[in-house]
Amino acid sequence: MENDGRCPLHVHAFLALSLDGFIARKDGGLDWLPTENVPGEDLGFESFLSGVDVLLMGRRTFQTVLGFGQWPYGALPARIVTSSMESRDIPTWIPGNVELTRKSPVDVLTDLGREGFDSVYADGGLLVRSLLVAGRLDDLVLTRIPILLGDGIPLFGPLDQDIPLAHVETRSFPSGLVQSKYSRSTRNLPRT
Amino acid sequence: MENDGRCPLHVHAFLALSLDGFIARKDGGLDWLPTENVPGEDLGFESFLSGVDVLLMGRRTFQTVLGFGQWPYGALPARIVTSSMESRDIPTWIPGNVELTRKSPVDVLTDLGREGFDSVYADGGLLVRSLLVAGRLDDLVLTRIPILLGDGIPLFGPLDQDIPLAHVETRSFPSGLVQSKYSRSTRNLPRT
Repeated sequence: MENDGRCPLHVHAFLALSLDGFIARKDGGLDWLPTENVPGEDLGFESFLSGVDVLLMGRRTFQTVLGFGQWPYGALPARIVTSSMESRDIPTWIPGNVELTRKSPVDVLTDLGREGFDSVYADGGLLVRSLLVAGRLDDLVLTRIPILLGDGIPLFGPLDQDIPLAHVETRSFPSGLVQSKYSRSTRNLPRT
Repeated sequence: MENDGRCPLHVHAFLALSLDGFIARKDGGLDWLPTENVPGEDLGFESFLSGVDVLLMGRRTFQTVLGFGQWPYGALPARIVTSSMESRDIPTWIPGNVELTRKSPVDVLTDLGREGFDSVYADGGLLVRSLLVAGRLDDLVLTRIPILLGDGIPLFGPLDQDIPLAHVETRSFPSGLVQSKYSRSTRNLPRT
């Protein structure tokens, strides 16, 4: 169903983090993430991905994905929020529906709603954090990997005030991963 | 059953932390912890407490507890690890079986084993972290409160190397708390 611009966009995040709250090592390294697929262990990412119609990603996460050498998001349209990259910095193997933008994440959401998108996958620590602070993140799936890294790129950071969240559900997996879904709390500030 | 000194002590921690990993605000404040008892919601702390026979606590956490105005650990013997406090700094309303020590946490564990203790409740961020690093923490119950504080006293900190942990179990509660138990991983360094 196409958004006719009258309904608010829904914005979702789906992130893996260490027990001490890092989404990557200082250099962006993800070697500590489990790489083996445990039979029968479906973390739900494919299902999550099938429920969104556009990807909104921060520049640093985009550069990490460029290091993978393949684009894991299929034909999903994507907007990359960056003040430093130019179109010519996008490798030719990246699909044509990946666009850079210099707008703020919240302004990009406004554009995406006008363009008829319904459901946004927000990715990247800084970007997710900025949407949390703006009250624009509807829900957040956190998958905790049972490891302490000691240092790295944190998901969370300083805030002007507490942000309470509402717990939706938690699942644990044979491999030791614990996945919790949180949504915006009714105790939060109203959307701006 | 009294420890005859031939069996290793078991060391356990039980901590509440915010989603962004803080155990207290910068000033030690715990106002963000849920204070209402939700009917039927047993977080298991009483059961945990009945399974230990001595408390090992860091100085900063001890001072936070002093601020409560009552000692919540009943007749449990306690050792407080501090390099700055003196016996005269302990208020008179604190039970007589609370002792200060200037030894390192690991050395105190050696003493406690010799004294016949079996099962240690380790409390305080720095202390728990030092025991984790030393490979002397057997298990760790983390209860995540669904709130982001942005700043405070973190449970975890810098490490010389990764510390993998083994997930034991996870429970979630109607109030939104998520409690996970982790134990030392077989991938960890051997005990020193």
